[in-house]
Amino acid sequence: MEFSSKLLENAVYEISQLPGIGKRTALRLALHLLKQPKDQTTALSTSLLKLREEIKFCSNCHNISDVALCEICANPKRDESLVCVVEDIRDVMAIENTGQYRGLYHVLGGRISPMEGVGPQNLTINSLVNKSKEGIIKELIFALSSTMEGDTTNFYIYKQIESLDLKTSTIARGIAVGDELEYADEVTLGRSILNRVPFENSLKL
Amino acid sequence: MEFSSKLLENAVYEISQLPGIGKRTALRLALHLLKQPKDQTTALSTSLLKLREEIKFCSNCHNISDVALCEICANPKRDESLVCVVEDIRDVMAIENTGQYRGLYHVLGGRISPMEGVGPQNLTINSLVNKSKEGIIKELIFALSSTMEGDTTNFYIYKQIESLDLKTSTIARGIAVGDELEYADEVTLGRSILNRVPFENSLKL
Repeated sequence: MEFSSKLLENAVYEISQLPGIGKRTALRLALHLLKQPKDQTTALSTSLLKLREEIKFCSNCHNISDVALCEICANPKRDESLVCVVEDIRDVMAIENTGQYRGLYHVLGGRISPMEGVGPQNLTINSLVNKSKEGIIKELIFALSSTMEGDTTNFYIYKQIESLDLKTSTIARGIAVGDELEYADEVTLGRSILNRVPFENSLKL
Repeated sequence: MEFSSKLLENAVYEISQLPGIGKRTALRLALHLLKQPKDQTTALSTSLLKLREEIKFCSNCHNISDVALCEICANPKRDESLVCVVEDIRDVMAIENTGQYRGLYHVLGGRISPMEGVGPQNLTINSLVNKSKEGIIKELIFALSSTMEGDTTNFYIYKQIESLDLKTSTIARGIAVGDELEYADEVTLGRSILNRVPFENSLKL
């Protein structure tokens, strides 16, 4: 693409550095901003800069938070003996939305992925292991994606806390509520049979 | 969506104001920026602000340009008696890419669309009409999208310059090079038969 304006070219280049946004979409977005009042561009730029400059993480669970101890960790009604291990804030938001969980979280900040250059030292695994040794936590629930990277991360953490007096579990894998059996993949269907639950349990929901 | 951080919530809100970007994508983009070095966010924000603050338009063709008279208008080798009327900079870039056009452009900045609140006064139509009266322009080529809004805009301009000694034309509509006839829509195919060109012309390309 050849641009008649260096300013426009720069803006398009920077927008297209975002994941999933190509040059054409970037140009469309830049031209859109030019047609809107200046305030919109100012608000967008300022909010991004502020986010990047002032972002804080909860000292206990490492979730994104504006205060030193996040709302969930600071809530005395939550069960601090139960900790759900997740990859990032989106997982926390998804689980919170269910309204089914009253424990705390531990946000790893990703998963071990040698392909993407993410090792255990890039995640908050040490902090989780140290917390586990304090004796307050009774159960760790692994809620990572069921991919090779997720499984590797689960196993890496498990190996480090194996010797501690701690229950570990993973969230149930199975057929989604409302899904038809015939369209489920074999691995999921197989796991849902192996990990079947007493029928009475489903009556309680 | 409930956020644990006001900073994140603001950033996601501002990003999701962009066309075609929903809350989930906005959150993904914001989390991506948080994982990248600070420089990237700074560069993005600065380029957007600079674009919006310092953008200039060519005084002759109204295309986006960093100088008062854009490169195309300032080029003495371009034919100033030929003016191609387009909607925005993307059309200029597309036509320039063909390498087939040696005239100048006139960028309208959109098309007449009562539904979107765009009237003739929001476009650079007056400037085009005034330019046409100066007598330097010999031909106007309408190259707007062939939609109802594009046709309305063409007709509106045509009515204002009808009395002048000026040739007007529109770009040819027809079957795209490489396309199969059987998949072409009827209107396009019909037009391509009506506006057929001497066979010898195609031999020259």
